[in-house]
Amino acid sequence: MKIDRLVGERFKEKPSDCVVDSHALMIRGGYMKGVANGIYSSYMPLKRITQKIENIIREEMNAIDGQEVQFPVVMPASIWKETGRYDSIGSELLRFTDRNDIPMVLGMTHEEAAVQLVRDCAGTYTKYPFMIYQIQTKFRDEARPRAGLIRVREFTMKDAYSFHTSQEDLDRYYKVCYDAYNRIFARAGVPEVITVQSDSGIFGGNVSHEYMLLTPIGEDTLAICDSCDYSANMEAAQSIVENKCEGEDRPLELVSTPGIHTIEDICNFLHTPLEESCKAVIYQKNADDSFVVVFIRGDLDVNETKLTNYLGEAVHPGEVTDGCGLYAGFTGPYGLDTEKFTVLYDKSLEGTHNLSCGANQPEHHYTGLKISRDIGDVEYIELAKIKEGGICPKCGKHTIKLSRGIEVGNIFQLGTKYTKSMGMQFLDSEGNLQYPIMGCYGIGVGRLAASVCEAHHDDYGPIWPMSIAPWHVEICCLRADDDECRGVSDKLYEDMKADRMEVIYDDRNIRPGAMFSDADLLGIPVRVIVSPRNLGEGVCEVVTRDKQINEKVPLSEVIDFVKKIIKDRLDELNG
Amino acid sequence: MKIDRLVGERFKEKPSDCVVDSHALMIRGGYMKGVANGIYSSYMPLKRITQKIENIIREEMNAIDGQEVQFPVVMPASIWKETGRYDSIGSELLRFTDRNDIPMVLGMTHEEAAVQLVRDCAGTYTKYPFMIYQIQTKFRDEARPRAGLIRVREFTMKDAYSFHTSQEDLDRYYKVCYDAYNRIFARAGVPEVITVQSDSGIFGGNVSHEYMLLTPIGEDTLAICDSCDYSANMEAAQSIVENKCEGEDRPLELVSTPGIHTIEDICNFLHTPLEESCKAVIYQKNADDSFVVVFIRGDLDVNETKLTNYLGEAVHPGEVTDGCGLYAGFTGPYGLDTEKFTVLYDKSLEGTHNLSCGANQPEHHYTGLKISRDIGDVEYIELAKIKEGGICPKCGKHTIKLSRGIEVGNIFQLGTKYTKSMGMQFLDSEGNLQYPIMGCYGIGVGRLAASVCEAHHDDYGPIWPMSIAPWHVEICCLRADDDECRGVSDKLYEDMKADRMEVIYDDRNIRPGAMFSDADLLGIPVRVIVSPRNLGEGVCEVVTRDKQINEKVPLSEVIDFVKKIIKDRLDELNG
Repeated sequence: MKIDRLVGERFKEKPSDCVVDSHALMIRGGYMKGVANGIYSSYMPLKRITQKIENIIREEMNAIDGQEVQFPVVMPASIWKETGRYDSIGSELLRFTDRNDIPMVLGMTHEEAAVQLVRDCAGTYTKYPFMIYQIQTKFRDEARPRAGLIRVREFTMKDAYSFHTSQEDLDRYYKVCYDAYNRIFARAGVPEVITVQSDSGIFGGNVSHEYMLLTPIGEDTLAICDSCDYSANMEAAQSIVENKCEGEDRPLELVSTPGIHTIEDICNFLHTPLEESCKAVIYQKNADDSFVVVFIRGDLDVNETKLTNYLGEAVHPGEVTDGCGLYAGFTGPYGLDTEKFTVLYDKSLEGTHNLSCGANQPEHHYTGLKISRDIGDVEYIELAKIKEGGICPKCGKHTIKLSRGIEVGNIFQLGTKYTKSMGMQFLDSEGNLQYPIMGCYGIGVGRLAASVCEAHHDDYGPIWPMSIAPWHVEICCLRADDDECRGVSDKLYEDMKADRMEVIYDDRNIRPGAMFSDADLLGIPVRVIVSPRNLGEGVCEVVTRDKQINEKVPLSEVIDFVKKIIKDRLDELNG
Repeated sequence: MKIDRLVGERFKEKPSDCVVDSHALMIRGGYMKGVANGIYSSYMPLKRITQKIENIIREEMNAIDGQEVQFPVVMPASIWKETGRYDSIGSELLRFTDRNDIPMVLGMTHEEAAVQLVRDCAGTYTKYPFMIYQIQTKFRDEARPRAGLIRVREFTMKDAYSFHTSQEDLDRYYKVCYDAYNRIFARAGVPEVITVQSDSGIFGGNVSHEYMLLTPIGEDTLAICDSCDYSANMEAAQSIVENKCEGEDRPLELVSTPGIHTIEDICNFLHTPLEESCKAVIYQKNADDSFVVVFIRGDLDVNETKLTNYLGEAVHPGEVTDGCGLYAGFTGPYGLDTEKFTVLYDKSLEGTHNLSCGANQPEHHYTGLKISRDIGDVEYIELAKIKEGGICPKCGKHTIKLSRGIEVGNIFQLGTKYTKSMGMQFLDSEGNLQYPIMGCYGIGVGRLAASVCEAHHDDYGPIWPMSIAPWHVEICCLRADDDECRGVSDKLYEDMKADRMEVIYDDRNIRPGAMFSDADLLGIPVRVIVSPRNLGEGVCEVVTRDKQINEKVPLSEVIDFVKKIIKDRLDELNG
C-alpha cells in the first residue's frame, strides 16, 4: 500500500470535540470518522488493527475449544421477554417494531440468543461442556457516548457463552478463560491490563471480573491494594470501616442551624469531624418514585450499585419537594416517619455515638445521636463506597488506592438465570433434568484498539505494538524527485511485498517534516528512511516508532534486519 | 474438531417450512437456526463456510486495490435524507428513533455512508480513482423472506464503492471488477454463474450487471439467447416485437360481448389470435392513486420495472371501482378520457390494425381498431416483457429462452447521483470543480453459501467445494469400540492436526449408517474411513463426497494422498 492511496487523510489540528488522546489521534490519523453521536466509520488502518485484534481473540478462543458462531444483530423482542430483560433494561436497549409491527431489539449482548441457539441441542450431559462465541456488531443506545471508541453506541464485540453441568466445571472453565484473556491482552500489547472483581449488573450471576487498563482517562474507578493483590471495581469493592465510639455518650440535643444545609457545614459549625456525623442521602425508586433514605457516616459516599442490588430495583437521586415529609438538608434518623419511607443504615454507623444529624424540621439539627439508644435496633447494611486509604478487604491494611481504568473485557459466572428462564434443560448422568450453568466472556474490539493507543502513544501519534499495527514497516522515500533515492525505495518496497511483508510506502514528493508527521500518526513500528545522504554511505536508517532502535543498516541487509525486528517483537508479544 | 463436540445437531426429517433443498439441508445439517422470520443464527460449520467466502472476496477486492473499511449498521436518517432515499425507499428500509428521538435507519446498503466517509478527503483529482469496501451485516425488512439464506432480512454482504474522475475511468474499473467477480464465483466453486444486464432499481445509474446462478428455484427470470451471448434480467431485457399489419383495414365496429372480461375470452369469442388484440393493463400511482392505463398487444405482459422507470414513480395494480370512469374488462383506447388518466401505448401496437379491444362501456368491445386512424398520433413506448422464443436484442434471432436464477452478486455504474446530492466534489486537473462518478459492487455472503449448496448437493447433503468447505477432510472411525480401529483413527487425527490440516473427526460409537448420514450432511470433500476390515488389509478407504475418488490407500500413504486431493482441488478452483 502506498500512503498517497490511503483514503483517510491525516491532519495536524486537534479536533475540538476530542477529550482523550486516543480519540484525537485516531481522528487526526485517518483511522475513523464520526457518522452520528457515538457511531463511527473506520478507514483502512483501523480496520486492519481491529482485524488483527479479532484474529488474536479468535485464536485464543479456538484454543480453549470455543466454537465460532454468529447471532443476529436484530432479534425478536420475544426472546428478551422470556428472560425479563426486555422490561428490566432501560433505554440503552434499542427497541423498535418491524414492518409487521413485531417488536424487535438491536443486540447489545447475546445471552438470550446464545440460549436460543443451543437449547434444543444439548439435552444430555454428554454434550457438555461447550463454549460458543461470536465477533459481531452490537448496539447500545448510550446516553452519553464519549472519548471516541472508548464509549460508543455501535461497537464490535467478541462475546462468548459457556455451558456446564456443574458449578465445579464452570469454575474450572472460568479459570481457563481468565488465563486466555490475559494472553489476549498480552498479545495485543497491553500486558499491564489487570483484573478486578466486579459487579455483575444486568447480566445477573455472582462471580465476575473486569479486565482493566489503568489510565487517568478511564471511566471506572478501581480500588487496588498497595500491599496485597486485592483489586476490585469501585462498585464491587467491599467497604470496611472502623467505627469509633470513644468518650462518654452525650445526650440528644436539638440545635438551631439556620442556613446550614450540608453535612460539611454542620460539622464546621459544630467544630466536629465528619466521622461524627450521620449524613442522609435521598433516592427515589424508579418504579413508583417512593423515597429511599440512606443514612451513612458523613465522610463516606453511597455505592449506588450496592444499593440497587440490595433493593432489587433501580433508583435515582431523590427530588425533595414541599410536603413530601422530608426536609432537604435537615433529614435525620430521629423522628423520621419510617412507615412512609424506606430507611436504610450503612454499616459505618454501627456502634457509633455522639453524631450530628438532621432534625426533620427546617433549620435544625441534632447533636449527640446514638442510634441504638435513640432509634433502637436497626439493621446495618454495607452500602458505602470504598475510600482512598481505606481498609483492604483482603489484607486488612489501610492500603487502598483508587485508580481510574478502562474496562477492556469482562468475564461473568451467570449461573442458571438464562437457562432457567428460557427453559433449557439436560438429563444428568442419573437421568434427572437439570438447568445448565453458564458463563459469559466479553471483549470490545474497538475499545481495546483505543485502549492500546491510550496506553502506547506520544504527542505525535500512536505507537502500535507489532501484533496489531496496521502495517509492520513503513518506507519513507525522503527525496522522491531523486532518481537513486526513488529507485532504492521502489526496489525495497517491491522486494518487501514479494516477501509478503506488511509494508506501507510513502513516496510522496513532500518535505521530510510532513512525511515524518504522517508516519508518527500512522504509528508503524519500524521505519526505513531512504535519503540521498544515507545512500552516499550505502545505508538506510532503520528506526522504530518507540525509539528503541535507530541504526544505519547497509542496503543489502535492510530487509533481514527489519524482518528480525518484526519477528523478535511478535515473539515477545506472543510469549 | 470432533463431531460429537459440534453444538449444532443433524437430523433426518425435512423441516416442513423449507421449500428449497439448500434451506432444508442447512437446517438438517446443523448449519443454522431460525431466530425470527428471515433472521438466522449460524452454527460453526456455516460460520466457517462464510468466513472462507469472505476471505476469497477480501483477497480479490484487495487485488484490485480495494481498501477495506467499515460503515455502521445503524445510520442517522439525515444522510439518507440528503440523497432523498429516506423518503423514496419503502418499508424494507427499517426506520426508528433512538433514545433522543433522532431518526435512524438500519443499513440495507451503504452508498450514503460511503460518500459520507470520503467526501471530505478526496478534494483533488490526484486522489482518484479509489475503491473502498466492507463486509458487514445489513438489514432489509423484506415483506416475504423465504428459502433460508436465499432471501433473508439480516444478511452479511460485501459492498464496494469506487470513485472516478471520468466515465472512461469508471468503465475501465467496472471491467476490472467484472472480472474479479467472475474469479470470486469460480473460486467459491460456482464457475457456472453467468452475468446478465440488469435494471439499477433503487441504486440509480445506468449500466449494471447481475451475477446469476441458474436454478429452477431462483426468484429472478432471465432472458438468455441460445444463439449469441446475450443475457439479461427479465426486468432489463429489451422486448423487440415484429408487428404485423396484413390484409385490408377493417372498420371500427362495436360488438356486444356480454359476460366476456378477458382478452383471451374476447379473442376466443371472435376466433382471432391474441396478437390481434389490444389489452388494457391498469395501474395506480402510489403517490396519488391516479390511474395509469397501459395498452399492449394481447399476447404480451407489462414489464413493471420499465413502467416505473418511464413514469419516474412507483405504481401498484389498479383497483377499478364504480364511477372511476374505467370499466374492468372493457377498457380500450377509443373513447377513453385521456385527460383523466395517464394513457400509455406499448411499441407492440405500433403500425398494427384490426385489433379487438374494450369499448369503455359495460359488456361491449370494439373490433377493427387501427390506432393511427381511430385515435391519432400517439407515442409508443417499450413497456413489454420479453417472451420465451422472443427476438434476441443482440443477434436478432427468435432464440430467447427464459430461465430462473438466483442473484449472487451485482455491479452498478451509479454516475453522480450520490456525489451530487451529498455535495462531494473534486478539483480536476484544470482547476474546475467536478462531481466524482461512482460504481458499486455487491455480493451477499450467506446467499452465495446457500447458492453453492443449491448448485452442489445430492439427496443426502451438500457437496462443498474444497475452497469453502467447513473442513477439508473427515475421519470416520467405524468401530470406536475396536482398539486398533480407534488407535489408527486417533493417530490419523493427531497427525493431520499436527500437519495443520482442516480435519473433523467422527469417533462416536454409532452405526456406520448413522455416521455416513451425518458425514453426507456435513458435506466434507474428503472422507477417510477406518474400519477393522480395511485395517486387515493395511489400508483406509479414501472417498470424496462427490464420488469421483474411491480408493483403498495404504495407511502410511493416507495423509499424503489426502493432501494431494486437497491441493489439486484448491488449485483447480483458484485457476
